[in-house]
Amino acid sequence: MAENMTLLWGSGSPPCWRVMIALEEKNLQGYNNKLLSFEKMEHKSQEVLDINARGQLPSFKHGDNNVNESYAACFYLESQFKSQGTKLIPDGAAEQALMYQRMFEGLTFYEKLNAVIYYTWFVPEEERHDSALKRNKEALTAELQLWEDYLQLGSASNLAGPSFSLADVTVFPTVATLFRFGLSAERYPKLGEYYALLKDRPSIKASWPPHWLENPKGQDTLKDI
Amino acid sequence: MAENMTLLWGSGSPPCWRVMIALEEKNLQGYNNKLLSFEKMEHKSQEVLDINARGQLPSFKHGDNNVNESYAACFYLESQFKSQGTKLIPDGAAEQALMYQRMFEGLTFYEKLNAVIYYTWFVPEEERHDSALKRNKEALTAELQLWEDYLQLGSASNLAGPSFSLADVTVFPTVATLFRFGLSAERYPKLGEYYALLKDRPSIKASWPPHWLENPKGQDTLKDI
Repeated sequence: MAENMTLLWGSGSPPCWRVMIALEEKNLQGYNNKLLSFEKMEHKSQEVLDINARGQLPSFKHGDNNVNESYAACFYLESQFKSQGTKLIPDGAAEQALMYQRMFEGLTFYEKLNAVIYYTWFVPEEERHDSALKRNKEALTAELQLWEDYLQLGSASNLAGPSFSLADVTVFPTVATLFRFGLSAERYPKLGEYYALLKDRPSIKASWPPHWLENPKGQDTLKDI
Repeated sequence: MAENMTLLWGSGSPPCWRVMIALEEKNLQGYNNKLLSFEKMEHKSQEVLDINARGQLPSFKHGDNNVNESYAACFYLESQFKSQGTKLIPDGAAEQALMYQRMFEGLTFYEKLNAVIYYTWFVPEEERHDSALKRNKEALTAELQLWEDYLQLGSASNLAGPSFSLADVTVFPTVATLFRFGLSAERYPKLGEYYALLKDRPSIKASWPPHWLENPKGQDTLKDI
């Protein structure tokens, strides 16, 4: 039981989800957690700011240690609970190289996804340009093709090598968000297969965004990508 | 000697510089390296694409393992050469928490810097807005204040805990770029002190951007930030 841990989180936020999957994989159930609302701006509340000067979710605390950046929390949990639960960093040099590489490419993947689905959220109305959104869509399409190719080469259910790793912990929430926003599994069959194989993994199922469960129908923002 | 390693890099690129500092700290001198020109678009050459499908620098290869993302390469080198050279990930939980946290906040720091100094590079002319650049500058100013505060709390020469770590490897190139682009050390004294203390560290001196050495005068883009 992880009663000396606290996670403040938002539903459907890939960075929050990463940390929740890592906690499940390391058998750290039972942590204190509080679901906050981005819409109500609760990520800027004093409760968050006390842990996280940036006023962002996730905000994560283990004892006196604050580790809010999602990748930081994943590395920290794997390092502090190395022999507990799933081993999330493989031993071999080749497997490690691939895992680190995919994990950090995952940040670009996430950024390119956000630049399309949250374009109107990030860019004030008077600064929006069809040409910019078009370019962002093209960049996402090229990015998706890269990941299709990566999955073509390896195992269908793991992004890096023969087993589930931090690459999956960090990138799966991005893939799930793609499909939530209407990506076509026919057009991107390897990503579709990866999504289908991992969505029932216990750690992922246990941390599935509650508002996706309540309302299983997503958006169709990405249907033409 | 690291003759089974190859680094393709560009002068003054913080991601390239991170990998070069890590290589120096791990006593991995003597690797094959080739300085390429971004201006001549050499990062899109076949030589790069053979290692890095994204056509980006750094492109790094160790034996058959490609690890191109700079953070990935830093983690990989520390993991593969743990007992060689400087130990770049501390042992204690509190030190690790802080190191991971600062390291990943460093990505946001770098992004906010780029959004100001490379605004006209990233944004096509017909899509530029004074309001956007102003907002980017305000975001960078707030970010700089955060790092001033962080340095106020800890050691002047290390971002995380009592010793030099991956946090410094990854964030120092951003700090150096700030001053290269004219940031005022009077207005940001802790960052100025950190920069002054680290710039002569052997790993950093050995990997100093050659075009900065040739032309020691930088720009003044950030003088009013």
